Amino acid sequence: MQMTSKDSINITAFTWPAGFDSDSTHAGLKEEQDDMGWIYSEVPASAAGVYTTNQFQAAPTKLTKQTINLKHQLQAVVMNSGNANSCNGAQGQTDALKMQALSADKLKIGKDLVAVASTGVIGEPLPMDKIEAGISQLHLSQSAGITKAILTTDTHPKTITVKCLIDNQPVTLTGFCKGSGMIHPNMATMLGFVTTDAAIDGQQLQSMLSTTVDETFNQITVDGDTSTNDMVMVMANGVAGNEPLTESSEDYPTFVKAFKLVLTHLAQEIAGDGEGASKLVEVNVTGAFNHLEGQQVAKAIVGSNLVKAMIFGADANWGRVMQAIGQTTAHVDIDGVSVSINGMQMVANSIATGIEDAKVSASLKNSKVVIDVDLNAGSAEGTAWGCDLTYKYVQINASYRS
Amino acid sequence: MQMTSKDSINITAFTWPAGFDSDSTHAGLKEEQDDMGWIYSEVPASAAGVYTTNQFQAAPTKLTKQTINLKHQLQAVVMNSGNANSCNGAQGQTDALKMQALSADKLKIGKDLVAVASTGVIGEPLPMDKIEAGISQLHLSQSAGITKAILTTDTHPKTITVKCLIDNQPVTLTGFCKGSGMIHPNMATMLGFVTTDAAIDGQQLQSMLSTTVDETFNQITVDGDTSTNDMVMVMANGVAGNEPLTESSEDYPTFVKAFKLVLTHLAQEIAGDGEGASKLVEVNVTGAFNHLEGQQVAKAIVGSNLVKAMIFGADANWGRVMQAIGQTTAHVDIDGVSVSINGMQMVANSIATGIEDAKVSASLKNSKVVIDVDLNAGSAEGTAWGCDLTYKYVQINASYRS
Repeated sequence: MQMTSKDSINITAFTWPAGFDSDSTHAGLKEEQDDMGWIYSEVPASAAGVYTTNQFQAAPTKLTKQTINLKHQLQAVVMNSGNANSCNGAQGQTDALKMQALSADKLKIGKDLVAVASTGVIGEPLPMDKIEAGISQLHLSQSAGITKAILTTDTHPKTITVKCLIDNQPVTLTGFCKGSGMIHPNMATMLGFVTTDAAIDGQQLQSMLSTTVDETFNQITVDGDTSTNDMVMVMANGVAGNEPLTESSEDYPTFVKAFKLVLTHLAQEIAGDGEGASKLVEVNVTGAFNHLEGQQVAKAIVGSNLVKAMIFGADANWGRVMQAIGQTTAHVDIDGVSVSINGMQMVANSIATGIEDAKVSASLKNSKVVIDVDLNAGSAEGTAWGCDLTYKYVQINASYRS
Repeated sequence: MQMTSKDSINITAFTWPAGFDSDSTHAGLKEEQDDMGWIYSEVPASAAGVYTTNQFQAAPTKLTKQTINLKHQLQAVVMNSGNANSCNGAQGQTDALKMQALSADKLKIGKDLVAVASTGVIGEPLPMDKIEAGISQLHLSQSAGITKAILTTDTHPKTITVKCLIDNQPVTLTGFCKGSGMIHPNMATMLGFVTTDAAIDGQQLQSMLSTTVDETFNQITVDGDTSTNDMVMVMANGVAGNEPLTESSEDYPTFVKAFKLVLTHLAQEIAGDGEGASKLVEVNVTGAFNHLEGQQVAKAIVGSNLVKAMIFGADANWGRVMQAIGQTTAHVDIDGVSVSINGMQMVANSIATGIEDAKVSASLKNSKVVIDVDLNAGSAEGTAWGCDLTYKYVQINASYRS
């Protein structure tokens, strides 16, 4: 994407926004790679978060939610991969609190300004000796190592840096996330972080985050399973020097647009890097009765194991798309549905157009597959992203711990 | 299972109930095996059905529902595999009607006494020349060929014959079904048929069927996908000579028990023969707030791709069971959940018991896996059945049509 004159949003090479530092280290939770790290803002930043709806919310997720809800401010986030610190009972809570306190001490800031995020195996106690040693090894730098250190089954880091002008000040937004399996967010997915030097009130940030997550992270699915540790978090430290943004600010729409660009990119990155995935799948629904139903149908199609396996096999078996639409409760013109795959219309008025299957099937070998559906039941739309279901997904999850 | 003195229900070798005939033939819808057939009762039988909730109900499913709803009577059911006659628009309806009429003519009975069931690929017109030739080849016999002729990706026929005494008359119930993929019933699953020579009113039969399906077919899942052609149907022709059963009949509980045994067996058979499955998985939930929530949690666990893949890999990663419980909206004592796998308790009070993983993992290599969960939130229960997620599931569905 290139900068456009209209909204002046520009994607650039990875860089931290002004006033942010980071670092990562190998604490020994994973065998070789870095598995711990933090991000730090020179000044307390406005903060917002959305958290998993799984009833077994992990200890760090709970603690971070409590911390952010205090006054929507954070100055640091400490993270680890290799262990989710989930389903560990009271010990898990103690360990999350200790991880928070140790980081606050080392950074010489208040505990209430430190969030904690953990990801990895559920139900194994956090090895606190390793965590403690890890924190003692962390410093402050401009390194992007943390974007690798939080990965689990991901095949690559997922990052984006976006620049725009807000109130005539150059503002940077940098987002990164991890997530590959147990992805079917219902409020947030896995770990996602956005840092920005823009000035904006914490409550305003929270409201913007919640709205944008519904259109981005909540519209991806890998396997229909919701993690206990999902969380998306934003920190805005105001170092850019703009007038604090409110909904009435002239440049608020630009900032929202830049923010949505960051979250959309990260969400698509997670979908395309789903466990074992060989293809990114995008489903666009039009003609929906309302937006919610458009979103519901798009997610149902992209989440169907049968659709996902058919895409892996490059078999343009559109009946499975119909099957996935039909099992939702959305309004559907039963005799008026259209389905196109990679721009080729296979279904009109709910029956086959007679287009040559082989042509469509061949196009399913591309690394991105787009399915367009018109429900003919209204004028609303919806979009969702996912991936194909492959042998490798099964392999990864049949032997996750070994 | 053996006959018990209390309720006198006995499982026997396959046989049709008195007054029922059947036949099957190769009509050419599939390459080699029989792909058409019918069942026929010498006299009109009480009939009941439950049908898919998928919005794109296939033409034969719609027609059968209409036919049964007329007066809850049927004398024959004609069936084919290899083509679902689904998403074929007006032509699909015409073809289903023709299949009904041709069968009625050949059997010399009214069209309104003939149900139609099709299963196979969605969205390809039914080849009516083959259907017509097939019907002309069908006769009446005691053959069980139909139980093979309706299979698609199933690896073996699924049948059960049960005998019991009702009103001092020997009564037989014979059920058969097909189903392997696109299995996540929400009213009924794939095709299931029960025939019995018991005398019972059609409305009574309908009510008994609807209740029992909720505890059996609706509690299995293979891939979370609901077919457009799902249907379970019962015919009771009264040839056994018992006084027509009502809820106040002394032997009504015995009949219901026998009927539930038939449906439970068939439902488990489908789950264990799920596409690519190597194991049957049973989940028993206790301590649920109410029965509905018990059923919901059991089905969520058995339906989780991550749990299914872990069972395939024989990895006793109980965190995934917790994850699946937590993503439901059921009441859960967050700090009081127990989980046992194959009788070995891995979780107490929502944390690890410390039992040796290796022992549990080894037991996951058995062909049946039982997961017991206590939610500690009430005294209700729930059960569901499913299968593991294997490479073969992906293979089958990546190349279903080729």
